[in-house]
Amino acid sequence: MTDAAGGNRLNPALIESLHKALAAFSEDDGVRFILLRSNGAAFCLGMDLEAYTAGGTGEDFHRVVKAYSELLERIHGCSKTVVGLIEGPVKAGGVGVAAACDVVIASNGASFELSELYLGLIPANVMPYILAMRMPVKRAAYLVQSAACVDALTALHWGLVDEVHAPGDMEKALKKLGRRLMRISPMATARYKAFMEDLRASPVGGQQKDRAVKALIDIASGEDVKTAVKGFSDGETPLWFRNFRPEGRLSIVVQ
Amino acid sequence: MTDAAGGNRLNPALIESLHKALAAFSEDDGVRFILLRSNGAAFCLGMDLEAYTAGGTGEDFHRVVKAYSELLERIHGCSKTVVGLIEGPVKAGGVGVAAACDVVIASNGASFELSELYLGLIPANVMPYILAMRMPVKRAAYLVQSAACVDALTALHWGLVDEVHAPGDMEKALKKLGRRLMRISPMATARYKAFMEDLRASPVGGQQKDRAVKALIDIASGEDVKTAVKGFSDGETPLWFRNFRPEGRLSIVVQ
Amino acid sequence: MTDAAGGNRLNPALIESLHKALAAFSEDDGVRFILLRSNGAAFCLGMDLEAYTAGGTGEDFHRVVKAYSELLERIHGCSKTVVGLIEGPVKAGGVGVAAACDVVIASNGASFELSELYLGLIPANVMPYILAMRMPVKRAAYLVQSAACVDALTALHWGLVDEVHAPGDMEKALKKLGRRLMRISPMATARYKAFMEDLRASPVGGQQKDRAVKALIDIASGEDVKTAVKGFSDGETPLWFRNFRPEGRLSIVVQ
Repeated sequence: MTDAAGGNRLNPALIESLHKALAAFSEDDGVRFILLRSNGAAFCLGMDLEAYTAGGTGEDFHRVVKAYSELLERIHGCSKTVVGLIEGPVKAGGVGVAAACDVVIASNGASFELSELYLGLIPANVMPYILAMRMPVKRAAYLVQSAACVDALTALHWGLVDEVHAPGDMEKALKKLGRRLMRISPMATARYKAFMEDLRASPVGGQQKDRAVKALIDIASGEDVKTAVKGFSDGETPLWFRNFRPEGRLSIVVQ
Repeated sequence: MTDAAGGNRLNPALIESLHKALAAFSEDDGVRFILLRSNGAAFCLGMDLEAYTAGGTGEDFHRVVKAYSELLERIHGCSKTVVGLIEGPVKAGGVGVAAACDVVIASNGASFELSELYLGLIPANVMPYILAMRMPVKRAAYLVQSAACVDALTALHWGLVDEVHAPGDMEKALKKLGRRLMRISPMATARYKAFMEDLRASPVGGQQKDRAVKALIDIASGEDVKTAVKGFSDGETPLWFRNFRPEGRLSIVVQ
Repeated sequence: MTDAAGGNRLNPALIESLHKALAAFSEDDGVRFILLRSNGAAFCLGMDLEAYTAGGTGEDFHRVVKAYSELLERIHGCSKTVVGLIEGPVKAGGVGVAAACDVVIASNGASFELSELYLGLIPANVMPYILAMRMPVKRAAYLVQSAACVDALTALHWGLVDEVHAPGDMEKALKKLGRRLMRISPMATARYKAFMEDLRASPVGGQQKDRAVKALIDIASGEDVKTAVKGFSDGETPLWFRNFRPEGRLSIVVQ
């Protein structure tokens, strides 16, 4: 469990440091979940367009767009649960970072805006994580085609956010969530995420169900699971249960 | 119209009796819709893990997992509308039963929890009915990966439930729904459900629309429909309209 | 920017006039968005079944069903943003017209009903625009299989509507929306809509992301976008920004 600072503008250095932090935390067995939050007022205001306005669409620009796309994929594909904590405005590319997280907690002060079309751009890399993963295509149409800025409660109803709290209750909500996450089997999280990717890529119908039966039996055959379920009915806690007692604000700055 | 008791734990005997009840009601022309409700406080608390803890993942376990998966498919694929009535907690495999229903009515006291990951398991068989059928993959991620327990109103907003009422208003709500369901053409229900399965399995685009045009013209060519539409504009009620006057609590226990 | 009267019943003449209006507005560079609204109390009460009851399912009926299906496709596929303004009841085929729009604004007095099954029919042509484009299959099941009539707020939560306002605030809301729409690059709107169609038709996974990277770089390479982004960081407004100062009620009747 740790905390990566989302920063304000996605420039090549920040994208690179987020990649490195996520890669390191993913491989660290001691890390049970990953928290993305900003140390500033805004969660993330999108791509830093300096590289673009300075150098055009040459190799540098291509590289940063690709690195951003891969960052979203790394968040989504991470074997651990990635939590996004949103306490202020999120815009453009920042919405993609939030959308790629598995769990999104927001304060009342959060807002979401995809206003690329004002500048003639489109939120191309963001859309695979919004479309189908978070909301239907026509809801996305409203957000993107009318450049609407929606508040946290609307985002909660529309699938961009999973919990909304008053700013003063955010740390408490995070600790409550953290306690649940620390009791979850890390192996089950990785298996669930892999299973869902497989399911999303499978054609609708019987095949999906056959795979589901097989996946459950495979997982239930593991000694870790057998022991946990048997122990649970005897009142024992599974081996992977951990207490969650963070002190102070949850935050480690990624340099 | 009838009522199958959902029971508390999905053990082989209950799964089998639900299969039999659904099969019988499906073929009975006098049954216009099927109601799944529990006689206990909980709608359904998931699979009974006794077979698993006792016998491991041998043939018996395989059989019950497959029977459960086929139960969800039978509910979803049933030619009649299946209504789930939820008045208390629903957990794990019970969420699959609710999710597979066509219409879900809940009381304020209902809650929904997919906490398999605590025990190292994943809700594999449930997910095809949640994912895309009820909510996007990232909303499901929150429920499953953080083992969140959500209340009836949240479930209403997130697609697990279609109506929420105070406990004292449940029978009234059910009767109101029943009155509508008894006026609906049973043949149209079967055709609609078959058409939607076809649509979901079709690639997005023109093909879907061509099939839709064809489906409507085929259905509109039926004598039953011609008579109903013509009669309707003359102020007559279609032949399949039935009154709905149940007495007392809607309930027939499946033994 | 203009306004086509949705009328009450979708008869061949109205469908044809909507086709013509949409075709003309689509090709007119001066039109920045298209507004569909009704001059009557109801937005649209569905297909006029007179042709059907009079002539059965012969060529005339086939023609009107196909023209309706193509109307929805024209709205959805239009290169400009199509806004639906709903101030009263919407039923059956009318729900398809609303669902095919990119942005839907409703007053508190709006209601939505898909009650085809009462007459033995199914809303076949409507479903491709509801299913996946607006809501999951089980939510659609509730609406169609139980013929529920839902109010504007429920429609807002369930993806049929994007904004709900008191009747007296509708013109103000429309002007606020219009101001945003007039600042959006018309080329970006067309590109976004084409990109999303491509994305929806692509298999989930890496391919989607590769296309997204390519789409963004292609668009960012355009001189119009380069100039806009560069100008924006210098405090200039893009060339396509327009003021939106309509006078009186927004309405041009399609004859």
